[in-house]
Amino acid sequence: MSDGSLSGGSLFGPMFGDPGVDAATGDRAWLQALLDVEAGLARAEARAGLVPQAAAEAITAACVADRFDPADLARRAVGSATVVIPLVEDLRGLVGGEARNYVHAGATSQDIVDSAMSLVAKRASAVIESHLAACADRLAALADEHRHTVQIGRTLLQQALPTTFGVVCAGWLVALDEARTGLARVRAERLAVQLGGAVGTLASLGEHGPRVADLLADELGLATPTLPWHTARGRVAELAAALGVVAGALGTVALDVTLLSQTEVAEVAEGTGGGSSAMPHKRNPARSVLVNACAHRVPGLVATVFAALPQEAQRAAGRWQAEWETVTELLRLTGGAAGHTRALLADLRVDPVRMRANLDAGGGLTMAESAVGRLAGAMGRERARAAVTAASKLARESGGTLRDALLDDPEVRAAVGSDELDAALEPASYLGAAEVFVDRALRAHFSWKETS
Amino acid sequence: MSDGSLSGGSLFGPMFGDPGVDAATGDRAWLQALLDVEAGLARAEARAGLVPQAAAEAITAACVADRFDPADLARRAVGSATVVIPLVEDLRGLVGGEARNYVHAGATSQDIVDSAMSLVAKRASAVIESHLAACADRLAALADEHRHTVQIGRTLLQQALPTTFGVVCAGWLVALDEARTGLARVRAERLAVQLGGAVGTLASLGEHGPRVADLLADELGLATPTLPWHTARGRVAELAAALGVVAGALGTVALDVTLLSQTEVAEVAEGTGGGSSAMPHKRNPARSVLVNACAHRVPGLVATVFAALPQEAQRAAGRWQAEWETVTELLRLTGGAAGHTRALLADLRVDPVRMRANLDAGGGLTMAESAVGRLAGAMGRERARAAVTAASKLARESGGTLRDALLDDPEVRAAVGSDELDAALEPASYLGAAEVFVDRALRAHFSWKETS
Amino acid sequence: MSDGSLSGGSLFGPMFGDPGVDAATGDRAWLQALLDVEAGLARAEARAGLVPQAAAEAITAACVADRFDPADLARRAVGSATVVIPLVEDLRGLVGGEARNYVHAGATSQDIVDSAMSLVAKRASAVIESHLAACADRLAALADEHRHTVQIGRTLLQQALPTTFGVVCAGWLVALDEARTGLARVRAERLAVQLGGAVGTLASLGEHGPRVADLLADELGLATPTLPWHTARGRVAELAAALGVVAGALGTVALDVTLLSQTEVAEVAEGTGGGSSAMPHKRNPARSVLVNACAHRVPGLVATVFAALPQEAQRAAGRWQAEWETVTELLRLTGGAAGHTRALLADLRVDPVRMRANLDAGGGLTMAESAVGRLAGAMGRERARAAVTAASKLARESGGTLRDALLDDPEVRAAVGSDELDAALEPASYLGAAEVFVDRALRAHFSWKETS
Amino acid sequence: MSDGSLSGGSLFGPMFGDPGVDAATGDRAWLQALLDVEAGLARAEARAGLVPQAAAEAITAACVADRFDPADLARRAVGSATVVIPLVEDLRGLVGGEARNYVHAGATSQDIVDSAMSLVAKRASAVIESHLAACADRLAALADEHRHTVQIGRTLLQQALPTTFGVVCAGWLVALDEARTGLARVRAERLAVQLGGAVGTLASLGEHGPRVADLLADELGLATPTLPWHTARGRVAELAAALGVVAGALGTVALDVTLLSQTEVAEVAEGTGGGSSAMPHKRNPARSVLVNACAHRVPGLVATVFAALPQEAQRAAGRWQAEWETVTELLRLTGGAAGHTRALLADLRVDPVRMRANLDAGGGLTMAESAVGRLAGAMGRERARAAVTAASKLARESGGTLRDALLDDPEVRAAVGSDELDAALEPASYLGAAEVFVDRALRAHFSWKETS
Repeated sequence: MSDGSLSGGSLFGPMFGDPGVDAATGDRAWLQALLDVEAGLARAEARAGLVPQAAAEAITAACVADRFDPADLARRAVGSATVVIPLVEDLRGLVGGEARNYVHAGATSQDIVDSAMSLVAKRASAVIESHLAACADRLAALADEHRHTVQIGRTLLQQALPTTFGVVCAGWLVALDEARTGLARVRAERLAVQLGGAVGTLASLGEHGPRVADLLADELGLATPTLPWHTARGRVAELAAALGVVAGALGTVALDVTLLSQTEVAEVAEGTGGGSSAMPHKRNPARSVLVNACAHRVPGLVATVFAALPQEAQRAAGRWQAEWETVTELLRLTGGAAGHTRALLADLRVDPVRMRANLDAGGGLTMAESAVGRLAGAMGRERARAAVTAASKLARESGGTLRDALLDDPEVRAAVGSDELDAALEPASYLGAAEVFVDRALRAHFSWKETS
Repeated sequence: MSDGSLSGGSLFGPMFGDPGVDAATGDRAWLQALLDVEAGLARAEARAGLVPQAAAEAITAACVADRFDPADLARRAVGSATVVIPLVEDLRGLVGGEARNYVHAGATSQDIVDSAMSLVAKRASAVIESHLAACADRLAALADEHRHTVQIGRTLLQQALPTTFGVVCAGWLVALDEARTGLARVRAERLAVQLGGAVGTLASLGEHGPRVADLLADELGLATPTLPWHTARGRVAELAAALGVVAGALGTVALDVTLLSQTEVAEVAEGTGGGSSAMPHKRNPARSVLVNACAHRVPGLVATVFAALPQEAQRAAGRWQAEWETVTELLRLTGGAAGHTRALLADLRVDPVRMRANLDAGGGLTMAESAVGRLAGAMGRERARAAVTAASKLARESGGTLRDALLDDPEVRAAVGSDELDAALEPASYLGAAEVFVDRALRAHFSWKETS
Repeated sequence: MSDGSLSGGSLFGPMFGDPGVDAATGDRAWLQALLDVEAGLARAEARAGLVPQAAAEAITAACVADRFDPADLARRAVGSATVVIPLVEDLRGLVGGEARNYVHAGATSQDIVDSAMSLVAKRASAVIESHLAACADRLAALADEHRHTVQIGRTLLQQALPTTFGVVCAGWLVALDEARTGLARVRAERLAVQLGGAVGTLASLGEHGPRVADLLADELGLATPTLPWHTARGRVAELAAALGVVAGALGTVALDVTLLSQTEVAEVAEGTGGGSSAMPHKRNPARSVLVNACAHRVPGLVATVFAALPQEAQRAAGRWQAEWETVTELLRLTGGAAGHTRALLADLRVDPVRMRANLDAGGGLTMAESAVGRLAGAMGRERARAAVTAASKLARESGGTLRDALLDDPEVRAAVGSDELDAALEPASYLGAAEVFVDRALRAHFSWKETS
Repeated sequence: MSDGSLSGGSLFGPMFGDPGVDAATGDRAWLQALLDVEAGLARAEARAGLVPQAAAEAITAACVADRFDPADLARRAVGSATVVIPLVEDLRGLVGGEARNYVHAGATSQDIVDSAMSLVAKRASAVIESHLAACADRLAALADEHRHTVQIGRTLLQQALPTTFGVVCAGWLVALDEARTGLARVRAERLAVQLGGAVGTLASLGEHGPRVADLLADELGLATPTLPWHTARGRVAELAAALGVVAGALGTVALDVTLLSQTEVAEVAEGTGGGSSAMPHKRNPARSVLVNACAHRVPGLVATVFAALPQEAQRAAGRWQAEWETVTELLRLTGGAAGHTRALLADLRVDPVRMRANLDAGGGLTMAESAVGRLAGAMGRERARAAVTAASKLARESGGTLRDALLDDPEVRAAVGSDELDAALEPASYLGAAEVFVDRALRAHFSWKETS
């Protein structure tokens, strides 16, 4: 029985997963989580005085994944559409003696599966968050290091105005930190225990039901819900959404790295870019491509979870069952995106010289807005705009620079000296709040780190 | 220019919308929101000393939706893929004089559209939340009223064990209250102002950029982001997710009402059920059907927003533009679901007699678990289970009751008296924590009301 | 290396998969398909005179999945984002000698993966279609057997007018046959070979490229495309859509079986309904639930494939890679739905007595339309409608039958005799084209069988 | 009442729609389609002898959209969840006299709405197909014109090997032609009439039902289904899928145009690129951006339609109703993508000089594969590969060309002359089947034109 085997298998698996998250979401992890819930239930009931302490200990001792055969369980699960029925059978067999009668007492299959899903999600999310934290730390360092690295900003993929690579990294950083905050909130507050019994009333536990549920939450380290949530699946959707936001924030980084790595742009490169089977000269942004692919696959799965929100009566006939592998896949793919992004950022090569060259290649046309601002003082805004527009047109058509075209205009020459014009056309002088924003992002990042 | 015309149009519109939400998301609402941002920007810049007070007042005075022609703006928007360019042209024309030069100063199109989208979402969400509050109050009353109304619980749509209609309503209530809390959180914390200028550096505002952004947030009543979020779209996804959770919680109520309204179940009915064009005897759950339809359409749109998270460089070339109508549709459909659910709950007819009859129609087989529990004391759990299983089989095959079949068994008769057996088979005696859960839900609901 | 391990793993796998389809889509199947393409390419190039026959034979002999280590390949695939690079390395090592230089000649990674995906899809679709054919044959038998089994038709889940279970089965049958036709069409016409070389020009094959591509299609039994389709992914979307239509048709059957199996309806039952861990009296529609779950998960994956249609330049940087596991999942889940539906239909229990009882339980109100039709001749349509509406209201309020209420109306008694009225109120007399439709469906089914 | 008002409204509408498609899918178009079905039904029943000819004529004469108030119909539709009930009321009122009794005879609401949806889809699809045909013709001309225009091919957005802009256009052309073929097939074969009566048996038409359905199909020019398809929605999913494939093919063109328009690439440009509110120097790919946005929004809607496939019993309680606006939106957005793509292609500027410059800027490294091929004859493949790899490394590190680096290698100089080397490094000599593929695409295109 191999970890990580629940989803992805081995042939494509590592490309779209992360070893740590795979281990937390694989067959063994799921099976152990199911058993952790059965064991926790027995201990909770022992604490509530419903089960002998020795029985709880015997049950806990038997709840070890390696003692079960997942393939056999899986086959026997088909007939009842739940793996818990054969699991409880086998667990009772393993426990034996009197204690076997205390296995699974008062619970319904869904209690076990839902609580286990909360456990799996909690454990996997912790791994994902650790990758995100590493990504964020790296981005904070890059933002600080490149706070003065001028880069052309691009809108609709057209060169627009200068910015800095530092503020670009700051933007990625804030998005990742906010996404991580969202996931951490869901993990702490919304991943809850489930214990409702057959129809959510905990009838077979008599008056002890709510107390046992509280104790089970304590045993498992999960949140206590107001009511059992057998068909109230907002929590699952919130988890899916939090993962989706994380995957999207990672996908934004990867998309930008892919675009900035283009041969014609070449402002960044993955340190260990992938080879090509046919083209030895290529250095592919392989990690980014994998992150793009992971991120691409998440929204459809988010939709599947959201579409499963309306669940019927006291247990759904299909939409609940649709959650199991889907949530697992969401954790796996988000984990893959996080792990690969961590790796690519750790090794990212940044080329400030090329950034400046790309900026300058436009003949200074991107500084037109700045030039209007400077000339407006001397010429009035409307004349300034007209002069710059005319010079821009001239520069574009002649392949010359905006500077030369402006200096061809006697009115401009009369208004400003060439030194003054050069200053107005210097990208580094037209960065607005870029550095303030870098500082804000770093401050937010480090205050988050302290409190989380 | 009609409100609500942005989406849905008139022929199918009212079936999938809500008048209040439609008014907050229609063309006029969007146009006014865009103008509110332009006006707020002028006032913010006046407070920052960048714009004369009189100019800000003149701009504000001109920012009235009815003074613009949305159809004409829309046509002119195609060439630049943004409605802000023609809008600013027309606004400058309306403002005239010197003040016209202060229109839109320092902003980029996306600043206006994103801030306006936050405003639209904030206003529409407030309406949606008011519907949700009304639904929740009504469910709280129903939960309280029906705390002793016994109903059969159904799992996989099979009769399982008894519950109460009160706890069913409590479950719906908790889900709606939690969904509303999520939407309110996004509304208060995540619907933010956008002001970044062309590439997110606010370059043309020099050193004043961040302060102007703060003042604009204050003018518009929106949150202040750490950085401009031109391509960091987590906020939009969080809004979509919160709406999706709301729609799902409403869809759960509607799905259950649809199923409980089935001719063969008939435990609830919509008070003003729809007629049929061909069948005068039918009373359709028309409102529930519309809520089901609204809820069905939301997840695909949520996926569209999540898939738009990775946006390129400093402004996206397609995925940002894809948000505008999609977010509007999400607000509209969630609003439709909320409004229709409010109407159907206000008028919901509950039939406790039929609930009891449906429960009893099963010959008491649903009380088998309870019978095992009671007999176990006298007979031991294994013998008790065997006796009940045999009696259940007999009752099912003969069409008789579990009670009669059990009393046919001498061992059972020896173990318990018939009164004791009747007590064990009484559904009302086997409700576990149902009432505790009703109280918990009500307590949570009323404490939310106080704090929100 | 276990079959079926690519997706689903073992713990939940069998619930959402089918053994035959899993074997056709698992790791071994994918690996063999990749090798089949490499071997086919060598043979095609031998036929074109570009590769020595002995080399092609040596390569073919080495292309056996069991000789490769998928876990090791997978790990080494991460760095280049393609499994073909390590696969070709290992294959060259296995082939050895001079022949090793002819491995993978002229191909790019995507050629191998895309052609292999076509092979996997083709093999898995054949299994799915065989399940669909068995489902359809069974439905044809049921439609024929139950052509006179009267059942109440339900619209919006309200009892409406009588139909037959035969025509219900005929409706399922036509939907399955049409869905199967669509999948078969994609399989035969759209699952194509891919051979374009690095950028789709087959440059390294010089003038021989197109001929080699044709020969490779012949070797693999795949369709020949007009051009290489590296970034023209309509074929993949068509496959996804065809699977989605199949899953939806199966989901319709399962949804109806779930609803007809409800305790209060009980018109059909799964022969081997699932047990419950807590409730021995329950017989769950377990297979239907699994089909519902499979069908629920397909549309999100279809959206993922469609969202991947726009692929960049000569090879996509993420969306192509996103297809591999998604297409595999689509095949697996559709296969699971097909296999489980086949099993549940094989064993479906139909209860005509309960169908009639449910119909009669409505007091004949569902025959109101028919009564109007019969009375219209004698009374005029408007009076007839008024009389029936009044009688329906009376019957509904009193709990009596429409027959008795109508006979209480002197005008009705004057218009028709009670025998005539009974005839008008007999559901079996008001079935319109039900039997014609059964015959149409059977005729279409058997003519399809002959031609396919 | 404005055309195109059903979806999109006016403020954003034109950006994501097309005037022709909007007119075919707007409120007026839908209303007229509903009325066309009612009129067609009356005429079909007249042909079948069930309705007097004069009544059919009177009904037909009244079935004019402008005589109805869609806003009022829409409001009255909410109570019954169908617009057909108030529509039939108003139509009966307009028709008056005896003929009013023949309105809507034998039909159920769903018959009218489904048949109308088929009509709307058919009319809108015809407009979309005409845009696609114009796009394809333009691409055919571009493919032919640029069959010798060498362009660097890019994989994972890295420069790879040379191709031609002609074969790029040919690839887009084939994808559009295949997508159009798919839509045309659905339009002709799968957009069917619906006539089943209340539960699909056509009971109230007695033995005449199937014949009336055939006549109605003839009146409306729609396909005849094997059975009524009230809950067999494969046809709707096939329509959605065909539109999704079209939108994806258009989105591929737009994505490539967006990427090729990047400032740093600049190989193509939209003739009338959009302005920017802040940056006068920019020329945005505005049409492409709108197509990207339309294409982005389609997959979520496709998923909504596919998720609606499982519909309950004889009429669905939500999923059917969810189709109406979703299908309309799919037609609108696909129409918008088609119309904008047509406009952008009509005006596309292609810069062969820049294409060659971009190719050459790589120092000839992209010709490494070709160089290996040529040197292999003289040096043996392994030595050739080693020499080229070393020279590529040298060129990359020194910023020189592959040619110079190879000529520095004495072994290379000994193997080939410099003229021979230049020939091997000439991109135009290494285009493989590019021209063959252009010819294939053109041949396929023109043969399609002849037969369709």
